Amino acid sequence: MRPLDVQNRKIENGFRLTRVGITGVKKPVVVHRNGRDNHLTALIDVFVDLPSTQKGSHMSRNVEIITEMIDRSVRQKVKSLEELAGGICKELLERHEYASYAEVRMEADYFLERTTAGGRTTLESFKLRARATAKRNNGLMKLVGVKVQGMTACPCAMETVHHIFSKISSKVGELGPDIPMISHNQRNVTTLMVEVPEHVEIEADDLIGIVEGSLSSPTYGILKREDEAQVVIDAHRNPKFVEDVVRDILGKMLEGYAELPDSVHITVRSESEESIHKHNAFAERVTTLGELRADDDE
Amino acid sequence: MRPLDVQNRKIENGFRLTRVGITGVKKPVVVHRNGRDNHLTALIDVFVDLPSTQKGSHMSRNVEIITEMIDRSVRQKVKSLEELAGGICKELLERHEYASYAEVRMEADYFLERTTAGGRTTLESFKLRARATAKRNNGLMKLVGVKVQGMTACPCAMETVHHIFSKISSKVGELGPDIPMISHNQRNVTTLMVEVPEHVEIEADDLIGIVEGSLSSPTYGILKREDEAQVVIDAHRNPKFVEDVVRDILGKMLEGYAELPDSVHITVRSESEESIHKHNAFAERVTTLGELRADDDE
Amino acid sequence: MRPLDVQNRKIENGFRLTRVGITGVKKPVVVHRNGRDNHLTALIDVFVDLPSTQKGSHMSRNVEIITEMIDRSVRQKVKSLEELAGGICKELLERHEYASYAEVRMEADYFLERTTAGGRTTLESFKLRARATAKRNNGLMKLVGVKVQGMTACPCAMETVHHIFSKISSKVGELGPDIPMISHNQRNVTTLMVEVPEHVEIEADDLIGIVEGSLSSPTYGILKREDEAQVVIDAHRNPKFVEDVVRDILGKMLEGYAELPDSVHITVRSESEESIHKHNAFAERVTTLGELRADDDE
Amino acid sequence: MRPLDVQNRKIENGFRLTRVGITGVKKPVVVHRNGRDNHLTALIDVFVDLPSTQKGSHMSRNVEIITEMIDRSVRQKVKSLEELAGGICKELLERHEYASYAEVRMEADYFLERTTAGGRTTLESFKLRARATAKRNNGLMKLVGVKVQGMTACPCAMETVHHIFSKISSKVGELGPDIPMISHNQRNVTTLMVEVPEHVEIEADDLIGIVEGSLSSPTYGILKREDEAQVVIDAHRNPKFVEDVVRDILGKMLEGYAELPDSVHITVRSESEESIHKHNAFAERVTTLGELRADDDE
Repeated sequence: MRPLDVQNRKIENGFRLTRVGITGVKKPVVVHRNGRDNHLTALIDVFVDLPSTQKGSHMSRNVEIITEMIDRSVRQKVKSLEELAGGICKELLERHEYASYAEVRMEADYFLERTTAGGRTTLESFKLRARATAKRNNGLMKLVGVKVQGMTACPCAMETVHHIFSKISSKVGELGPDIPMISHNQRNVTTLMVEVPEHVEIEADDLIGIVEGSLSSPTYGILKREDEAQVVIDAHRNPKFVEDVVRDILGKMLEGYAELPDSVHITVRSESEESIHKHNAFAERVTTLGELRADDDE
Repeated sequence: MRPLDVQNRKIENGFRLTRVGITGVKKPVVVHRNGRDNHLTALIDVFVDLPSTQKGSHMSRNVEIITEMIDRSVRQKVKSLEELAGGICKELLERHEYASYAEVRMEADYFLERTTAGGRTTLESFKLRARATAKRNNGLMKLVGVKVQGMTACPCAMETVHHIFSKISSKVGELGPDIPMISHNQRNVTTLMVEVPEHVEIEADDLIGIVEGSLSSPTYGILKREDEAQVVIDAHRNPKFVEDVVRDILGKMLEGYAELPDSVHITVRSESEESIHKHNAFAERVTTLGELRADDDE
Repeated sequence: MRPLDVQNRKIENGFRLTRVGITGVKKPVVVHRNGRDNHLTALIDVFVDLPSTQKGSHMSRNVEIITEMIDRSVRQKVKSLEELAGGICKELLERHEYASYAEVRMEADYFLERTTAGGRTTLESFKLRARATAKRNNGLMKLVGVKVQGMTACPCAMETVHHIFSKISSKVGELGPDIPMISHNQRNVTTLMVEVPEHVEIEADDLIGIVEGSLSSPTYGILKREDEAQVVIDAHRNPKFVEDVVRDILGKMLEGYAELPDSVHITVRSESEESIHKHNAFAERVTTLGELRADDDE
Repeated sequence: MRPLDVQNRKIENGFRLTRVGITGVKKPVVVHRNGRDNHLTALIDVFVDLPSTQKGSHMSRNVEIITEMIDRSVRQKVKSLEELAGGICKELLERHEYASYAEVRMEADYFLERTTAGGRTTLESFKLRARATAKRNNGLMKLVGVKVQGMTACPCAMETVHHIFSKISSKVGELGPDIPMISHNQRNVTTLMVEVPEHVEIEADDLIGIVEGSLSSPTYGILKREDEAQVVIDAHRNPKFVEDVVRDILGKMLEGYAELPDSVHITVRSESEESIHKHNAFAERVTTLGELRADDDE
């Protein structure tokens, strides 16, 4: 006689649980994209819901599913983290037969080549993110995401400084827009997550490009003297509040993904690790493309 | 002439932002409770929304408001973090005249005396949490929360071990329920957040007690030999999945707060840092008391 | 018959252990200084060594000692974390009779009032640190430390930008030193630890002042428009590499503590969270005042 | 005329700096080992010292060196992180002509297949570490390291429980050593770093095996019911203090690396995230093989 399956036991006076699962699973993943293999180390969380009548969720099935789906992804050359997350999500519903909801979250370091103003090649690090949720008999929702570190320079301080310096020297007024005034600038971390509808492909590389293009300036690992100055000049000619960063990304998403339906979810979060404060500045929009299009029409 | 207020500038083709504010502000706070002052170091985030027509939120007002409300809380002897969070939240709407939504989050270390089975007194650390949100002309929602570290022992492994050991020695079957079998046990972190309706008081100390009472055992800083064994025995006589922890808390909340209305929000999250795995086990319920009562009636 | 004291058991073929103890103990501590009580939440690690012949260290004694010494510190109005750390360290040797070495580390959030250029008062957060080590029959070494967050502006980028802008407009050369060029600036975290010899007092507040005075600028929670610009102007008139920050602190320590003996240990670490890179810049000096004085004489 | 090289500027009254460099650089690295490529995401810190007469270190050279050496490592099929760290370290001294000391630190997630008692294959995550230091004209020191997460069960609580349970039932005394009593067990994180002398190879995989074999039990991602019970049984038949973990690793290193010279540095740190406390238990030995051998001879 084998011991009872404690998890499967039926209980009374239980409560439904919205998410039960495992967090912090680390696995190597290979994503096959544009003709080359990307070797990623993914951090993975998976959850299903649990009906009020069942004592426990079968936790070990979760790691089995993750492992099998990653193995299969190598043979079938999966193209993205979100495709893999979607596959795991479907399989969670398949094997947790009592569940009506499943959710998968993945994150991994990711690298892209960039070229500095001076023509130097540098390999920059980003984060890829993916999220998938599924309801039984109700399709699958996948989101692709990127987390990008860059630079913001403050437009407000720049104007106040211009005003103060104008009183010190009349030459300041004659400098023109190509010679911006000093301001505070800082490291900024911005996250963009977008729903990927069925039969549509959204390239994480494009999303990274959109975020980088919405900051005061991207940042680079290697900057020799002239390149360093150019990043500083670019950032100050393009000062941005966190609010501006989020809005510029939203605007570019509307332009670049005009064919996506109104129902598509999109979240943008930008946080500047202020150089003049010990706290951070933060801006966020959680919305759908439809809502954004309505905003834009007003 | 003073420089333009860059933030106040009117813009076209902007987008509404759901949250704009500051994160990671640290402040000393004094909470006056049960006749004594609790000196807390609070970590604070505050946000308001921003209409599509306005360039920026006035970030410096946020720290001014936090500072003034904390100063006032000392004079008026505020009773809880959530009361303070509510006050800050109202003031955010007051002084960000363009905002229709405000949100405040606070967290602080907190200490309570506990007595071990052997009668030893020990000072244990917990986390207090508070959250407040407000919509203009639409009241204020406050939540009180606690984060408690304790211990869970796995009921499933215990049964399997009993089964295996029964085959090694017939005496195992004769031991009785007071002598539980070995299992894996581990550090668990559980969070409970509850909405506090107007004119109601919910004591964080009571919530901590409810969470501690729903784990396999509370944990203690000082445990001499017999106390240590007693904690181990208590935990194994009371084995719990993360699912059980969440459900037991939900059950105790229904019992202990029967007078609270159905609309009250409640969230319970429990995470066991599994000793047999490198990942964590997780369970969660996000709900209202009304939904819970319906679960319970089924 | 009570069970054996497992830790006390004598073993053969053991190895000496350099540090055995507990980490991550949280306790409320009150430090009485300049006529007022500072309520701190301290994070504490304590260690002793263990001879090769003894199986285990008595871990529960560590928390007992911490608790008793903190209780005593309230009655005796201890003046600093390092005084408390020293007391705990002596007691560790007292009650771990087999140990020849003891070590204590403490860290706590700490707040000081600051005034901005515009006369505004703001409460700023810092970290206090303390470390104490003792060898049996060989006195006690105490260190006081501070961790300060501030701002650095890069001198190198500023010069390159000046060179580039001079080619765009001849007016740039006429602006004078009061109107600095743009550069990258960023959040900087600097730690200063100093040994406190017997019968000497070193005020943590003074150390915080020395670090703040060695950065391009301190940072503030509340900055209205003119104050914000002034911080930016101050930082750019005072550009600093991390190397400069460390050396300026070392120079000020030599000047301000001329009476301290050559044997006094001092460590300075400065890390700038570069706004133009995804990585940090770092500089450090681990030394004694005697070595520093020799450097300075060259 | 190009702008001055600010860093190269000669200064008076400077102080020597013990370490100047960059921290937190992320790069993909390929390590070629046992016929297969390991794709790692490495986190890298590099430092050189700085003489008192020079204003600044050339920070951008650091990332250039890291990038070039990683590129070269792909072509030359580098066998380990420590070999790569050693190469970077030498190059740091080469191109920071003013430096007399260089240091490199690397860390990366790493995966190895493991088989559970029940024969199931599971891919487990570990951390690889490497450290290299060099003094000019004085050779290179390389260290290989591993960070392993596993499980410890407490021997002390187990004995006390046995004592208590023996009073409840006389059958407890008859159970025999194969049926251990309950105890607290928990997640443990242990780090082992060993110097790698010239012309010697130390396999990180072997070090991981030594650490796993010195814990109460390794841990696994996938554990079906019987496997889970077996891990619990194994751990309780092999209870360990953190002190035991460190000493067992030291003993195995002496045995397994008998041919290594006395001068070889070795550090072992073990931390148990106690299930019965909110703090951790910690043990450490920092030593050389020579010192260890002397301990062992006593």
